[in-house]
Amino acid sequence: MTDLHHGGFTLPGESGYEELTLRMAEKWGADVIRDSDGTKLSPEITEAGYRIYSTICIIREHNAFALKHPETQQQTFLSSDPVLALSDRLEIDPLAGFFTEQFQINDSLEALPFWQVWDRTADQLLPREKWSWESGRVRIAGCVPYHRYTVSFLCWRIWEEINMYNHTTNHWQTEHLRQLDPRHPLAWDYLQRWLKTWCENNPQTDVIRLTSLFYNFVWIFGSDPRRRTRFTDWASYDFTVSPAALRAFEAESGIALTAEDFICRGKLQATHRPPTPQKRAWMDFIQRFVADRARTLVEIIHSYGKQAYVFYDDSWVGMEPWGPYFPSVGFDGLIKCVFSGFECRLCAGAKVPVHELRFHPYLFPVGLGGLPTFMDGGHPEKDATDYWLHVRRALLRQCVDRIGLGGYLHLTIGQEAFNDAIEEMAVAFRRIRGLHAEGAPAELPLSVSVLHTWGALRSWTLSGHFHETDGHVLIHLNEALSGLPVRVRFISFEDVKAGALSGTDVLLCAGQAGDAWSGGDAWLDPALTTEITRFVYEGGCLIGAGEPSAAAGRDTRFALAPILGVDQDRGEYACHAPWAFEAAPAPFRVDRAALGRGTDGIRLIAPDTRVLAAEGNTPLLTLRDFGKGKAAYLGGFVYSPSAARMLLDLLLSLTGQCGAPAGLCDDPLAEAAWFPASKTLVLLNNGPEARKVSVRFPEGSLETELKPFEIRFETR
Amino acid sequence: MTDLHHGGFTLPGESGYEELTLRMAEKWGADVIRDSDGTKLSPEITEAGYRIYSTICIIREHNAFALKHPETQQQTFLSSDPVLALSDRLEIDPLAGFFTEQFQINDSLEALPFWQVWDRTADQLLPREKWSWESGRVRIAGCVPYHRYTVSFLCWRIWEEINMYNHTTNHWQTEHLRQLDPRHPLAWDYLQRWLKTWCENNPQTDVIRLTSLFYNFVWIFGSDPRRRTRFTDWASYDFTVSPAALRAFEAESGIALTAEDFICRGKLQATHRPPTPQKRAWMDFIQRFVADRARTLVEIIHSYGKQAYVFYDDSWVGMEPWGPYFPSVGFDGLIKCVFSGFECRLCAGAKVPVHELRFHPYLFPVGLGGLPTFMDGGHPEKDATDYWLHVRRALLRQCVDRIGLGGYLHLTIGQEAFNDAIEEMAVAFRRIRGLHAEGAPAELPLSVSVLHTWGALRSWTLSGHFHETDGHVLIHLNEALSGLPVRVRFISFEDVKAGALSGTDVLLCAGQAGDAWSGGDAWLDPALTTEITRFVYEGGCLIGAGEPSAAAGRDTRFALAPILGVDQDRGEYACHAPWAFEAAPAPFRVDRAALGRGTDGIRLIAPDTRVLAAEGNTPLLTLRDFGKGKAAYLGGFVYSPSAARMLLDLLLSLTGQCGAPAGLCDDPLAEAAWFPASKTLVLLNNGPEARKVSVRFPEGSLETELKPFEIRFETR
Repeated sequence: MTDLHHGGFTLPGESGYEELTLRMAEKWGADVIRDSDGTKLSPEITEAGYRIYSTICIIREHNAFALKHPETQQQTFLSSDPVLALSDRLEIDPLAGFFTEQFQINDSLEALPFWQVWDRTADQLLPREKWSWESGRVRIAGCVPYHRYTVSFLCWRIWEEINMYNHTTNHWQTEHLRQLDPRHPLAWDYLQRWLKTWCENNPQTDVIRLTSLFYNFVWIFGSDPRRRTRFTDWASYDFTVSPAALRAFEAESGIALTAEDFICRGKLQATHRPPTPQKRAWMDFIQRFVADRARTLVEIIHSYGKQAYVFYDDSWVGMEPWGPYFPSVGFDGLIKCVFSGFECRLCAGAKVPVHELRFHPYLFPVGLGGLPTFMDGGHPEKDATDYWLHVRRALLRQCVDRIGLGGYLHLTIGQEAFNDAIEEMAVAFRRIRGLHAEGAPAELPLSVSVLHTWGALRSWTLSGHFHETDGHVLIHLNEALSGLPVRVRFISFEDVKAGALSGTDVLLCAGQAGDAWSGGDAWLDPALTTEITRFVYEGGCLIGAGEPSAAAGRDTRFALAPILGVDQDRGEYACHAPWAFEAAPAPFRVDRAALGRGTDGIRLIAPDTRVLAAEGNTPLLTLRDFGKGKAAYLGGFVYSPSAARMLLDLLLSLTGQCGAPAGLCDDPLAEAAWFPASKTLVLLNNGPEARKVSVRFPEGSLETELKPFEIRFETR
Repeated sequence: MTDLHHGGFTLPGESGYEELTLRMAEKWGADVIRDSDGTKLSPEITEAGYRIYSTICIIREHNAFALKHPETQQQTFLSSDPVLALSDRLEIDPLAGFFTEQFQINDSLEALPFWQVWDRTADQLLPREKWSWESGRVRIAGCVPYHRYTVSFLCWRIWEEINMYNHTTNHWQTEHLRQLDPRHPLAWDYLQRWLKTWCENNPQTDVIRLTSLFYNFVWIFGSDPRRRTRFTDWASYDFTVSPAALRAFEAESGIALTAEDFICRGKLQATHRPPTPQKRAWMDFIQRFVADRARTLVEIIHSYGKQAYVFYDDSWVGMEPWGPYFPSVGFDGLIKCVFSGFECRLCAGAKVPVHELRFHPYLFPVGLGGLPTFMDGGHPEKDATDYWLHVRRALLRQCVDRIGLGGYLHLTIGQEAFNDAIEEMAVAFRRIRGLHAEGAPAELPLSVSVLHTWGALRSWTLSGHFHETDGHVLIHLNEALSGLPVRVRFISFEDVKAGALSGTDVLLCAGQAGDAWSGGDAWLDPALTTEITRFVYEGGCLIGAGEPSAAAGRDTRFALAPILGVDQDRGEYACHAPWAFEAAPAPFRVDRAALGRGTDGIRLIAPDTRVLAAEGNTPLLTLRDFGKGKAAYLGGFVYSPSAARMLLDLLLSLTGQCGAPAGLCDDPLAEAAWFPASKTLVLLNNGPEARKVSVRFPEGSLETELKPFEIRFETR
C-alpha cells in the first residue's frame, strides 16, 4: 500500500531554522532535505536522518581564480547599436547601451580577429582596413554619410547571470560572482580539482544537485532601466562562444563561423527563429562538449559514492534532456521546476533514472514579474494551487518520481494556507505515483506528432516557461496535450522526410510565419509538403494552428494551405476573392474563447472547407476532408481546461474515435483518467465551482458531484 | 457675378421622359444633356437647346463584326486552379471554375505556344514535351504524385465586363455584348470606319463621351456563385494581353514575356503589389499604344467638329490621366465619377481642358453592394449628401469645371428630397467654382509628397473607389489630404533617388508590408533610405503609417525604422525587448478613433521616440526628432473629418506652422477655406449637429454657429 504521507518530497532546509526545517519535513513527508541558492544546511539538519541534496553551480563561486585568470571567464558576441554616419568618419563605443557590470570588452589578440564592422544600411561587411580600434573606440574611415554602422565584438561576461538576476531583483548585496568557461584548460583542471575537494569535504551529501552545468541561457542587460533586459532566451547558444570554441569547431567541421552567424543583423538567433545549418552544427558541437565534460564531472561525483542530479534551468545550455547526448552523461536524476503541465512531461519523459519536479512558487519574497509572493499582498497558496492544477493533469498521464520546493523555508512561517496546500498536493502526488506504479493509465490509440524545426530536441518546451512564451500558439497546444490521454511526440522536418509520419495519427503544425515552430523556409522543400500531402490523402489527419507552414515563394502562403483549405492573405491575395462561407454545425462543443482573436487574413481557398467558427469574415476553426484523411485549422488556441477539452474533441473527431476507453467526462471542465491495473478512475474538477459530472470509462459510467478543483480517486 | 442657378451641370436625359428631362434640366440648371448606358435621347431632347453628350463605348456593340471575326476579340491569360496529382498522369480542364459565359479557350496556333504547365509544389515550369492538349484537356505525363499542377492559358473574353456586370447585377436580359481589340488590324480599321459613320449620323452630338477606351479593368468571374468574382482590380493590365501584343512588345523591348509574368504563381499582379521591371515596361508599352490609338480617334471626332471627353472608368486601362502620355491624346475633357474627395482631386489636377465630376448615386435601382438606392428602402438623398460632404472639401482646394449625373432620369420621379439636394449642391458647386475663378484659395507653405511604387501614375487613387480599397491605410490619408490646404504630389522611389525630395516639406509613406504602397523590396536599395535619412536629418519631416517601408533583409523590418524610432516585430525581434514607454502629452488633439486598431507588433526602438497614443504596449502614434527634422508614425488612419483635422494638426506640428493663413477652425468637425481674391471665407460643418465655431484667418477671426452639414460663404 502506498504511503500517502511520506516520501518522494524534497524540502529546502535552512540553517538557523532547524526546528522549522524538521517540523516542515514531518508535515510534508519529506525524505530529502536540500540547500538552495542563498541558504545553507547546518549539522542539526544534515544529521537528522534525511537524504541530503547539495546544490552546486559548478562554474560559479570561483572569483579568486577568475580574477587571477581572467582569460578563463566566459564570453559572448555582442553587436553595438547602429550609429548613423554624418560624414565619412565615425567613432563607435561598442558597449554603449549595455550593462557594463555584466560585460567587459575582449580586445585580446585572439579575440580581435573575430570583430566585424557592418554597414547595416547597405548590409555590407566592411573590409578590415576601413576601421581601427583605438582608445576604446572603433574608428571607421570612408563611411557613406547617412548609412548606419555597427560593431560586432567579443566581450567577457563578468557577472554570472543568475547571480546578477538575484542582485537586481532580490536586492542581494554580496560580491558579484563570475563564471568560468570549462573549455579553457586552466579552468577545466581547476574545476575538476575543486569538485574532488568539495566531495571530500562534504561527506554528508548524498546527492549533488548541479545547477546546472556550464553555459547559462542568454540574458543580456542594458544600461538603461527602460530596457534593462535587452535580450533573454532560455534556449539560445550565444553564451557558449569563445575564440577557442570557434577555432575548435572550425578544426572539426571545416566551418569558420563569424560574429554575424551569432549577431544575425542585430537580431540574435533566438530559439524561436529557424537556425542556419551552420548554427545547428554549432549546437551539436556544443552539446557534445557539454555532455563530455559533464560525464567527467558525474564520474568524479560517483567516485565519491554520491549521486549526481541535474537541475534543468539556469546554466543548462547544451544539456537538452531530449537531445541525443543527454543519456550518455550518466546523471542519476533530473530536476525540473514547473509551472505547467508541459514541463512535467518534459521532465517525466527524459531518459534518466529519477525525475523530480520543483514546484512553484519558489520560497522567495518576490515572485514572477516582481510581484509579492511571500510578502504582504502575496497569496502563495493561490499560486501553488494554480500551478498544481496544470501539473496534476499531466502527472495523471506520465508521472515523476519526486516533487519538492526550493528557497528560504522561513518564509513559510505563518503561511498556514500555503503549508496545508502543499501537504495536500504531496498526498495527491503520492497517490498518483502509486497508481502509475501499479500500471499505466489507459491511453487512446491516437498518436499526435508535433512538427517543427527542432523536433525532439525541443520536446514539450519552446523556450522556457509558459508565461515567457505565451505569445506562441504552440505552447498553449503543448500545455493542452500534456494532460490528454494520447501519445505525443515531437518531430522535425528532417524526420518527416525520413519517414517519421509512419505511426502518426495526427500531425500538428502551429506557429507564427517565419518562426521555428511554423517552419519558415523549410517549407520550400517540396519533399516535405509532398510527404505530408501523401500522409493526409491516404488517411492521416492534420491540424494547423496560427500561421502554420508560412513561407514566401510558392503559390500559397501556407505550404499546407492546399490540404487545410484555408490560406492567409497578408497582401498577396490582393483583389482575389476568397470563397464565401456560412458557418457549419460543429461535430463537437466549440469553445470560442479558446480560439482567441484568431489570425489576421485567414480565408477559404477551397469550397469544401467547413467553417465551424468565424469572427466576421475570418474563419477561426475549420474542418476539411482531404482524400481519405482530414484537416483542421485553428486560427488561435488559448490554453484553458475547456480549451484542452476542445482539442481532445477535435482529435477524436478527426480520427473517428470515442474517448471513453481512457475515461471521458461530459463536462468540459472535468477530466478523467482510468488506471486499469488499479481499477481506479481519477476525476479532476478543473473549475472553481462544484459540478455534477457524468463519466464514461471502460467499465461503465458514473455520475457524481465534484467539489471545486477536486481530485477524486474512485476505485471500482 | 456668378450665375448660381445655371451652367456647369450635365443631366442624364431619357427618351420617353421628355417633359421630365426638360423640367429637371431647368431645376438643376443643366446646360448639357447626355445619354447613359441603357438610355437614349429623343429629338425632343436633343433639339431643346442644350449641348448634347453622346456616350460611346468604342470597343463594344459590334457583335456582328465580332462573331464574323472572332479572332479580333480581346483576350487574357488565366491560370487553372491547381490540381493534385495522384499518380504520374493528370488531366486538367483549364477553364474549370471559371465563368464560361465570360471566357472561351484560345488554343489557336499562335496562342498555344504561350501556354504553360507548372508544378506549383516544386515551383517548376514543365518542359513542353511533358504535356499535351487533347479534347479540351491538358494531359500531363510524368507527374510527381501529390504535387499540384496548373495550366496557364490564353482565352478569349467573350462578354464585355461592364455589360456582364449590368446583366448579373441589374438583371439586364439583352444580348451579351462582345469587345474588340484595337490592336488587331481588322478591328482597328473597322472601329475607325465605324466612328466616322457614327459622327456622320449624329450631327446633334456636341461631345462624344468615350466610356472609356479599349481595355477594361480586370474582372474575372467564377462559375460558382460563392466565388462569382474571382478577381477584380481597377488598375491591372491583364486584359491588355494578346499574342500579337506580346510579340510586338518583344520586338520593341527585347523582353519575351511569358504567361507567368501575368499569372505570378496564381496571384495576378494587382496594382497593390509591386511590379517587376518587365511588367512596368509592358505597362508603358500599353500606355503608348492606348494613347496612340486614342489620339487617332480624337482626331476623327475633332474632324467632325465635335469634342471628345473621356470617362475615366470601365475600359480605361492604359489611359492614366496622370500618366506621361495622357496629354498627348488631345482629349477635350475628362469625366470622373466620384464618391470621395480624392477622386475630385484626381480629376481636377489632370492636364486636360475640361474637368467634370459625375456624382453618385448613379440613377440606378440598385447601388453599391446590391443595396437599394432608387427603390423602396433606399435613401438616395442621404447617399448623395454623404458623397457631397467628401467632395465639397476637395472642391474648396481645387475645383472642377462641371458636375453631373448619370443613369435613368425617370427614377427621380417622386424623389423630391434627392432632387432638392442635388439642386442645392449644384448651387454650392457654382459658388465654389466662381470663387476659384476669381483667384486661388490660400494654401499653406507646406508641400506633402506621398511616396510609393507608382508615384505620379497613381496620384490620389490606389485602385478604384474608396470603398474598394478601404483596407489600405493610404487611401484614408489621401482622402484626408484631398481637403487640406497643403500642396500634395505623388512620387516614386525612383523619383526620390533622382532628387525629388527637394521642395518637399513632409514625406509620407503608408502601406502594408510588401505592397506597392509600402514599397516592398524597393527598400533594399540603400540609395533610397540614405536619401530619405539625409532629407529628414537636414530638416525634412517624415510620416510613416501602417507598415511603411517593410522589407526582409535588413536589420530593421521597416527601412525607415531608424528614422521613425519604431519598428515592427513579426517574430524577428523574438526575445529582444523594446524600449518601455509612458504616453507623452500630445501637442495637438489626438483623435483616438482615427488611429483605428493600429498595427500589430509595433515597438519602440529608440529611447527618444515620444508615444502620443498607445493601445496597451503597442504605440499607435509617435513623434521623434531626428537631426534637424522630425518623424511621426501612425499605427493606423481611418478617414473621418476629425481624422483629417488630426492629420492637418500633425502636419502643422511637424513643420512648426500655424494653420491660420489658410483659415483654421477650433472645432475638429469644422473646416475653413480662405479665398483672398474674393475676400471670402468658406466654412464647412462636417458634422450632423449645429456647432459654434471660432475661426482664425488672415483678416482676423470670426465666431459663428454653423447648421448641420452647412457650407457657409462669408464675404468680408
